[in-house]
Amino acid sequence: LRAGKPEAVLAEFKTVDEVVEIAKKCVSEKRPVLFTRVTAEQSTALSELGLAINERARTARHMRLEEESGKVAIFAAGTSDIPVAEEAKETAEFLGMEVLRFYDVGVAGIHRLIEPLEVLSKEDVDSVIVVAGMEGALPSVVAGLVDLPVIAVPTSVGYGTSLKGFTALFSMLQSCSSGVAVVNIDNGFGAAVFAHLISKRVRKKRL
Amino acid sequence: LRAGKPEAVLAEFKTVDEVVEIAKKCVSEKRPVLFTRVTAEQSTALSELGLAINERARTARHMRLEEESGKVAIFAAGTSDIPVAEEAKETAEFLGMEVLRFYDVGVAGIHRLIEPLEVLSKEDVDSVIVVAGMEGALPSVVAGLVDLPVIAVPTSVGYGTSLKGFTALFSMLQSCSSGVAVVNIDNGFGAAVFAHLISKRVRKKRL
Amino acid sequence: LRAGKPEAVLAEFKTVDEVVEIAKKCVSEKRPVLFTRVTAEQSTALSELGLAINERARTARHMRLEEESGKVAIFAAGTSDIPVAEEAKETAEFLGMEVLRFYDVGVAGIHRLIEPLEVLSKEDVDSVIVVAGMEGALPSVVAGLVDLPVIAVPTSVGYGTSLKGFTALFSMLQSCSSGVAVVNIDNGFGAAVFAHLISKRVRKKRL
Amino acid sequence: LRAGKPEAVLAEFKTVDEVVEIAKKCVSEKRPVLFTRVTAEQSTALSELGLAINERARTARHMRLEEESGKVAIFAAGTSDIPVAEEAKETAEFLGMEVLRFYDVGVAGIHRLIEPLEVLSKEDVDSVIVVAGMEGALPSVVAGLVDLPVIAVPTSVGYGTSLKGFTALFSMLQSCSSGVAVVNIDNGFGAAVFAHLISKRVRKKRL
Amino acid sequence: LRAGKPEAVLAEFKTVDEVVEIAKKCVSEKRPVLFTRVTAEQSTALSELGLAINERARTARHMRLEEESGKVAIFAAGTSDIPVAEEAKETAEFLGMEVLRFYDVGVAGIHRLIEPLEVLSKEDVDSVIVVAGMEGALPSVVAGLVDLPVIAVPTSVGYGTSLKGFTALFSMLQSCSSGVAVVNIDNGFGAAVFAHLISKRVRKKRL
Amino acid sequence: LRAGKPEAVLAEFKTVDEVVEIAKKCVSEKRPVLFTRVTAEQSTALSELGLAINERARTARHMRLEEESGKVAIFAAGTSDIPVAEEAKETAEFLGMEVLRFYDVGVAGIHRLIEPLEVLSKEDVDSVIVVAGMEGALPSVVAGLVDLPVIAVPTSVGYGTSLKGFTALFSMLQSCSSGVAVVNIDNGFGAAVFAHLISKRVRKKRL
Amino acid sequence: LRAGKPEAVLAEFKTVDEVVEIAKKCVSEKRPVLFTRVTAEQSTALSELGLAINERARTARHMRLEEESGKVAIFAAGTSDIPVAEEAKETAEFLGMEVLRFYDVGVAGIHRLIEPLEVLSKEDVDSVIVVAGMEGALPSVVAGLVDLPVIAVPTSVGYGTSLKGFTALFSMLQSCSSGVAVVNIDNGFGAAVFAHLISKRVRKKRL
Amino acid sequence: LRAGKPEAVLAEFKTVDEVVEIAKKCVSEKRPVLFTRVTAEQSTALSELGLAINERARTARHMRLEEESGKVAIFAAGTSDIPVAEEAKETAEFLGMEVLRFYDVGVAGIHRLIEPLEVLSKEDVDSVIVVAGMEGALPSVVAGLVDLPVIAVPTSVGYGTSLKGFTALFSMLQSCSSGVAVVNIDNGFGAAVFAHLISKRVRKKRL
Ligand SMILES: Nc1ncnc2c1ncn2[C@@H]1O[C@H](COP(=O)(O)O)[C@@H](O)[C@H]1O
Ligand SMILES: Nc1ncnc2c1ncn2[C@@H]1O[C@H](COP(=O)(O)O)[C@@H](O)[C@H]1O
Ligand SMILES: Nc1ncnc2c1ncn2[C@@H]1O[C@H](COP(=O)(O)O)[C@@H](O)[C@H]1O
Ligand SMILES: Nc1ncnc2c1ncn2[C@@H]1O[C@H](COP(=O)(O)O)[C@@H](O)[C@H]1O
Ligand SMILES: [Mg+2]
Ligand SMILES: [Mg+2]
Ligand SMILES: [Mg+2]
Ligand SMILES: [Mg+2]
Ligand SMILES: [Mg+2]
Ligand SMILES: [Mg+2]
Ligand SMILES: [Mg+2]
Ligand SMILES: [Mg+2]
Repeated sequence: LRAGKPEAVLAEFKTVDEVVEIAKKCVSEKRPVLFTRVTAEQSTALSELGLAINERARTARHMRLEEESGKVAIFAAGTSDIPVAEEAKETAEFLGMEVLRFYDVGVAGIHRLIEPLEVLSKEDVDSVIVVAGMEGALPSVVAGLVDLPVIAVPTSVGYGTSLKGFTALFSMLQSCSSGVAVVNIDNGFGAAVFAHLISKRVRKKRL
Repeated sequence: LRAGKPEAVLAEFKTVDEVVEIAKKCVSEKRPVLFTRVTAEQSTALSELGLAINERARTARHMRLEEESGKVAIFAAGTSDIPVAEEAKETAEFLGMEVLRFYDVGVAGIHRLIEPLEVLSKEDVDSVIVVAGMEGALPSVVAGLVDLPVIAVPTSVGYGTSLKGFTALFSMLQSCSSGVAVVNIDNGFGAAVFAHLISKRVRKKRL
Repeated sequence: LRAGKPEAVLAEFKTVDEVVEIAKKCVSEKRPVLFTRVTAEQSTALSELGLAINERARTARHMRLEEESGKVAIFAAGTSDIPVAEEAKETAEFLGMEVLRFYDVGVAGIHRLIEPLEVLSKEDVDSVIVVAGMEGALPSVVAGLVDLPVIAVPTSVGYGTSLKGFTALFSMLQSCSSGVAVVNIDNGFGAAVFAHLISKRVRKKRL
Repeated sequence: LRAGKPEAVLAEFKTVDEVVEIAKKCVSEKRPVLFTRVTAEQSTALSELGLAINERARTARHMRLEEESGKVAIFAAGTSDIPVAEEAKETAEFLGMEVLRFYDVGVAGIHRLIEPLEVLSKEDVDSVIVVAGMEGALPSVVAGLVDLPVIAVPTSVGYGTSLKGFTALFSMLQSCSSGVAVVNIDNGFGAAVFAHLISKRVRKKRL
Repeated sequence: LRAGKPEAVLAEFKTVDEVVEIAKKCVSEKRPVLFTRVTAEQSTALSELGLAINERARTARHMRLEEESGKVAIFAAGTSDIPVAEEAKETAEFLGMEVLRFYDVGVAGIHRLIEPLEVLSKEDVDSVIVVAGMEGALPSVVAGLVDLPVIAVPTSVGYGTSLKGFTALFSMLQSCSSGVAVVNIDNGFGAAVFAHLISKRVRKKRL
Repeated sequence: LRAGKPEAVLAEFKTVDEVVEIAKKCVSEKRPVLFTRVTAEQSTALSELGLAINERARTARHMRLEEESGKVAIFAAGTSDIPVAEEAKETAEFLGMEVLRFYDVGVAGIHRLIEPLEVLSKEDVDSVIVVAGMEGALPSVVAGLVDLPVIAVPTSVGYGTSLKGFTALFSMLQSCSSGVAVVNIDNGFGAAVFAHLISKRVRKKRL
Repeated sequence: LRAGKPEAVLAEFKTVDEVVEIAKKCVSEKRPVLFTRVTAEQSTALSELGLAINERARTARHMRLEEESGKVAIFAAGTSDIPVAEEAKETAEFLGMEVLRFYDVGVAGIHRLIEPLEVLSKEDVDSVIVVAGMEGALPSVVAGLVDLPVIAVPTSVGYGTSLKGFTALFSMLQSCSSGVAVVNIDNGFGAAVFAHLISKRVRKKRL
Repeated sequence: LRAGKPEAVLAEFKTVDEVVEIAKKCVSEKRPVLFTRVTAEQSTALSELGLAINERARTARHMRLEEESGKVAIFAAGTSDIPVAEEAKETAEFLGMEVLRFYDVGVAGIHRLIEPLEVLSKEDVDSVIVVAGMEGALPSVVAGLVDLPVIAVPTSVGYGTSLKGFTALFSMLQSCSSGVAVVNIDNGFGAAVFAHLISKRVRKKRL
C-alpha cells in the first residue's frame, strides 16, 4: 500500500564516509535525497557534492521528491526553536509543499499572534506545524484559534525543568485545546512528513 | 477562526450533579453533547435522561454535532485496548464520521493484519487511528504499510515496564516509520477530533 | 523576626480526633485557626463545632487572623482547578485579604481573558495568583500581559502526561514570560500566604 | 497592561554573531540591555563593545533600565552557588535595585545565619532571594525566621542525588515554612525580575 | 560471624493467618519477636495473643531480644513523622536500648532545636536518629551541631514534590553536613537496627 | 558448579596501560581473552599486540575459548544498531559459536523479514538474538513468528523519547509475544554469553 | 514457523463474564487453557467450572498443553516472592515441564543457598528461573555459581526505593555475573514460557 | 557540640586558583587539609605545593587531622569501584584511622569473600565500608555475614540500567539484610567521616 515514502537519511549516527557514499549514488542516479541532523563535517562534504545546505536546519538536499503537493504553515515560538522549524520547512519543500513561516510568536507576547493568524485565514493551508520549547504552550493557543489539524513539535530548548524537551512534549500532549497531535522532540522532519500525508489526501480528493 | 469545536465534557473530574445539569440543559435546548470518561454512577444518571451510553467506551451521547464528515479507520492491538478505541469511535460518530473498526490485530500475530489492510485499501478513508498498549508497536507496522496519516493512541494497558502507558507513548513517538503523530495516553477522544479536522479539510477541498 | 505566621493545620495526615481537639482549643481560647485539606469526615466534625466550611476548598475556618491586609486576584484555568483556587481564596481571606476571582479562563479560549484583565487593571491589586493544571500555560500568558508578581499554582488535574501536576509545575517554572514564581502542586494555601507577605510589605510602606 | 519588561537576552542558545549584533544595536541606540548565560567567547566580544562583564555571573550589561526601584537581599548557601546569586544581583541592579549580599551561610553552620539576619532586620528590604544547591534547605530556615516574601532559587550544584538541582527544587517547593515561592533551577535572572515586580508595587504604594 | 540478628517480621506482605502462626510459635517457645508494618486487622489478632501493640508505630512485640545495650536519641521533624519515629523507638527497645525522644522540632522553627540539643549533650548517647519528611532538612541541621553519627530516616509525608519521600531521601543523601548516613523511606526499623550495631560495638569496647 | 566463564574484559572503565598489561599476559600465557567496549586508543595498542580488532563492534580478541559450541542467529533492526549486533557476534565466535547475521530488517518494512525467517527455518539454530533501538518492536514481531528463545538487546540509538535505550528496553520487557528475555541496553556481549549457555546445554544433550 | 504457543489468558484486564465464557468454551472443546493474574472473583467462578486453582499463583488451569517437555529449577528469594514463583511453576507445568522449587534462599543468608545448589548439580535441569524482589541480588549470586542460563524475574515486593520492582529489574539487568536474561516485573508466566522454549530446543536435539 | 569537623574541600566546583589559595594558606599556617574530587590540573598544582596526592582517589592531602582514632575495613566489589574506595581510605587516614582494604570481592564470585571475612573477624574493626556499583549487591551479602555497622557507598560505575549509580543506591537502601546505612553515590568521603564518628564514640567509651 505504502508508496512515495521519502528517501531520507538520519545522518547523525553515520560516518562522513557513509553519508558521502549515499549522496554520490543518489546524485549519479539522479534520485532525490534529503539528509537530516547533518554534522558540520558532513555538511561540508555534502556541500562539495553540490547538495543544497540549510545550515540552521542542519539539512542537505538533492532535488525534490514531489511537486505542488499542498501548503503548510509553520509557527515557531522562539528564535531558539528556528532550527527545528527549518528542518520541517526543508523536509516539506523536499516533499513538494509550499511553506508559510511565522517565527518568534511565543505566548509571552500573545498579541504577536494576531497578524499571522489573519494571514493564515486567507491562505489555502491544509495543516499547521507549531514548534515550541520551554513550556510548549503555543500549540494550545493556536489550536484554540484555528480550525485545522495542528501538528506540535516540542524542542529541547531550555534548561532545568525543560528536561531537554520532555516538559514541552508532555504539555503538548496535555493540550487543553483538542485538535493537536504531537511528534518526537526536535522532530521537524516527522512533522513535515505527517503534514505531507494530510495534503496528499486532500489533493487526491480535490482531483 | 475556530468554529464547530465539539461540545464535549470530560466527566471524570465532575460530580454526578454537575454532569446531570449540563445534560439536562443540552437535552432541553436540543443541543448535541458528548460526555467522556463517564463513571458508572454518572452513566446510570445520564442513561435515565435518554442519552446513548457506550459502556465499554465510557461515553454518553446526545445527538450528533455534524453529518457525513468523512471516514476513518480504527485499529486496536489487543482486546484490552478496545475501550479506548471505542471512545475514539463514539467521538468520531458524534462528529459525523463513518468508522471502520479492526480490533485484536496486535503485532504478536502479524498475519492478522493482512486482511484488514486489504479492506482498508479499497475504502475511501482519510486517516487511520491506531490504538495500542504494552510495547505500542502496532502504529509503526501500520504506518510502514499504509499511505495515510496515522494517529497513534497509547493505552495504559499492561503492568511493570508498561509504566501506565508511557512506554507505548515513547515507542510511538520514536516510531521508525515516519507518518505517525501521537495523542495523550488513553485519549481516544483527541485522536477522533484530530481525524475529524483532517476529514473536514479533505471534504472542503472536495466540494 | 518572624511574626504573624498563620495558625494553619494540614488536616490530611491527622485523625479526626486530633483535628477536633485542636479546633476545640482554638474555639475556647478564641484564637483564629484554618484547617486545609480536610477530609469529608473531618469536615462534618468541624462544622459541628461551628467552623466555617468551604467544601470545594476542603477548608474549615474559625475567625480571621488579620483584617484589611490587601487585595489579590485569583485566576483559575478550568473548572477542575477551582478547588485549589478556593483553598487560596479561603487562606487569603483568613489572612484579611480581599479577593477578586476570575475562573474558567484557560488558554484554549484566549479571548475569555480580555475582560478579566481589563477589570484587573482598574483594581488596587498587589499580586496575582494563577491556578492551572494540564499544560499549565495560563501563568505565562497572564504574566505576559500584567505588570504584577504572578504566583503560579500547578494542579494535579489531568491524566496521562499530566503526571499528577508535574507537567504543569515544570511548564510554569519554564515560563517564557519572566515575573512568575511557583509553589507546590495543589498548594493554594502556600500561594495565598506568599501573596499576603507581599501585601503586608506594600501596606507597611503605604502607611 | 505590561510595561517595562526588561530587555534581556538569554545568550546561551545564540551564536557570537547574533549576540554581537544585538549588543551593537542597543549601544548605538543607547538602549539598556542585559545578556545572561554568556559563554566565554561571547563575553570577550561583548567586553570589546564596552559592556560591563560580571564573569562569575556570566552576564554582560549595557546601562540600566530603571533607577532606585527598591532593595532586595540575596543569600547564597555555598561558594558554588555564588554564580547564580551574582546573576540575580546583576539583574536586580540592571533593574535599578539596591542589593544586600550574604554569601556562604549554609545550614551546615546555622550560627553563621545570625548576623546576616540581624543586619537584614534593620534594612528597608522588600523581599529576600535565597540561592541554594544540594539539599536546598536554606530557604526553609530563612523563611522560618523572616517576615518577608522569600524567592528561592535552586542551583545545579552537587553530584549523585542532587539530580542537577531537582532535589533542591523539590525541597524548596516542599518547604515546611510557608512564605516561599520558587523559580527554575539556576534562574537567578527570574528571581530578580520577580523581586523587582514586588518592589515596583511597594514603591508605587509608597508614592 | 553474624549473630543476634533480630527476629523481626515485615507483616505488610503477609496474611493475618501467616502472622498469627509465627506469633503463636514464638509465644509458646518463649522466643522474642517484633512485627512491623502491621495492618489494623493483624494488630487486633496479635493483641489477642498478648503481644504489646504500639498503634502509631504499627508494631507488635513479644519480649525483648537484649537488655541494656546502649542509648539512642530520636528526633522527629513534624507530627506526621511520629509513626516512623515510633517504629524506630519500638525496634530500639526490642533490642534493649534506652531511647530519648525529641518530636516536633522541624527546621521551620529552628529555635525549638536548642533545648533538645542541650539535653542531648548531657546524655550518654551513642548515635542520633533523625526522622523527617517534606524537604528532609532536619538531619543536615542536627549533624551540623552534634558530634555523633546521624542516621537519617526520610518519611513519605507530604504531597506533590515530596514524591512519597524521595525528595527527603535525596536531600538527606546530599546533606551539606558530613556525618549523615541514610536508610530507606519510612524505615524506622532499619535505623534502629543500625543504631544498635553501633551501640553494640561501643559497649563491647567499654567492657 | 560454574566453569568455562569467558575471560572477558570491559575495557571502557580501564586505562590503556591496564588493558595492555592484561593483553600481554594472556598472549604470553597463550590464554584466550576478549576485550569489549574498547576505546580508539586502546584499540590501537591492542592491535599492535596482535589482537584481532572489530572496529564496529569495539572489540579486540585473542584466540577462542571454545570450538563448535552451537549456532545462533542475530537480527539487527537498523544500520545504527549494527555495532551492538557485532559485539554479540564477536562474543559468540569467541565462545566457539557459528553466527548467522540478518541486518537492517526493522519493522518499518515488515516484508524485509520474510526471507531471513525462511533461511532461519532451515538452519540448526539454538536461539535468536534480536538487536533494536528506537521503539524496539522487532523482538515482538520475530518472537511471534519463530519457535525459539528470543534474546532481545535494546540499543541506545535514537533521540528524544528513545531515552538512551530505556524505551526500547521497556518495550521489549512488555512484549506482547511471549518467549522474549532481555539483557541490558547495548549489551551485545551478555546476549551472546546467554545464547552460548543455551547452546551448551543443547549440545550436552545431543552427545 | 511458530507453533504450540500457549493458550494463556491474562485475566486481570477482563471481566468475570469474559473469563468464564473463554473457560466454558475450552472445557467443552477439551482444549487446554491457563488463566493468569486471576482476581478473587474470577477464581471462584473458574473453580466452579472445574479448573485447577493455585491461589498463591493467582492461576486457573484446564488440562496441560504438552507432556514431558523438560525440567526447570525455580529459586525464590523471600516468602513474598512466592506468588510470582508459583505463577512460573503453574505455567511450566501447564507446558509439560517438571519443576524443582527452592524457596526462601535470599542473599541475606547466603549459606542457605549451598544445599539447593548441590541438589541442582545432580538434576537434569535445562535452565534456572530466579525470582527476587527488593535489591534483586539473588540472580547474580546464582549465575556466579551455576553453568546454566539464568532467567531472572524481578518482583514488585518492597517499599520506598524498591520502586515497585524497578530497582530489582535494573539490578538484574546490571548483573555483574554474565549469563542472566530478564523478563518483566512479576512476570513468572513469561519466564516459564522462555524456559520451555529452551527445553523444547534441548529435547529436539536429544531425540 | 560539634567539633573537629574535617577541613575538607570539594575541589570539583572550584577553579585552580581558588584551590591553590586555600592550600597555600593551610600549608603556611600548618593546618591539616584534605581536597577531594580534584581535577588533573588542580592535582598538578597541589602536588607542587607539597601535598600528598592519591591519583586514583583524586585526593590531595596536607597533614592529618587526628591520630589513632580507630580501625575501619573497606570492601570494594570491582576494580572500577576502587577510586571511590580509595577516596574513603584517604579520608579515613586523614582522620587518623587505620584502614584494612579488601578489593575485587564482588558477588559474581562469592567464594572470594571467605578469606577477607576471616581476616576481618580477627581484627579490632569498628565498622565496615562497602563500595559497589552495578547491581550494588555486595553490602547485603556482607551485612548478612558480619555483626558490625555496614556503611554502603554506591558508585556510578556501569552503563544502561546502572543509571549512573542510582540502581546501586536503591538496591542498597532496599537491602534485605538489616544493618546497612547508605551515603550518596561515589561519596567515599562521607562514608569515612561517618565511620570516624562511630570510632570516635567507641574510643571515647574505651578510655
Ligand atoms: N530527523 C529525523 N528524525 C526522525 N526520523 C528521521 C529523521 N531523518 C530521517 N528519518 C527517518 O529515518 C529513516 C532513515 O534511517 P536510516 O536508514 O538509519 O538512515 C528515514 O527513512 C526516515 O524515515
Ligand atoms: N476524554 C477526553 N480526553 C481529553 N480531553 C477531553 C476528553 N473529553 C473532553 N475533552 C476536552 O475537555 C474539554 C472539556 O473540559 P471541561 O470544561 O473540564 O469539561 C472539552 O472541550 C474537550 O476539548
Ligand atoms: N494545604 C497546605 N499545603 C502546604 N502546607 C500547609 C497547608 N496547610 C497548612 N500548611 C502548613 O503546614 C503547617 C502545619 O503543619 P502541621 O503542624 O503538620 O499541622 C502550617 O504551619 C502551614 O505552614
Ligand atoms: N501473566 C502474564 N504476563 C504477561 N503476559 C501474559 C500473562 N498471561 C498471559 N500472557 C500473554 O498474554 C496473552 C493473552 O492476552 P489476551 O489476549 O489479552 O488475553 C497470552 O497469549 C500470553 O502471551
Ligand atoms: Mg514555548
Ligand atoms: Mg500493543
Ligand atoms: Mg491549564
Ligand atoms: Mg544548600
Ligand atoms: Mg522535614
Ligand atoms: Mg527498532
Ligand atoms: Mg531479593
Ligand atoms: Mg557490584
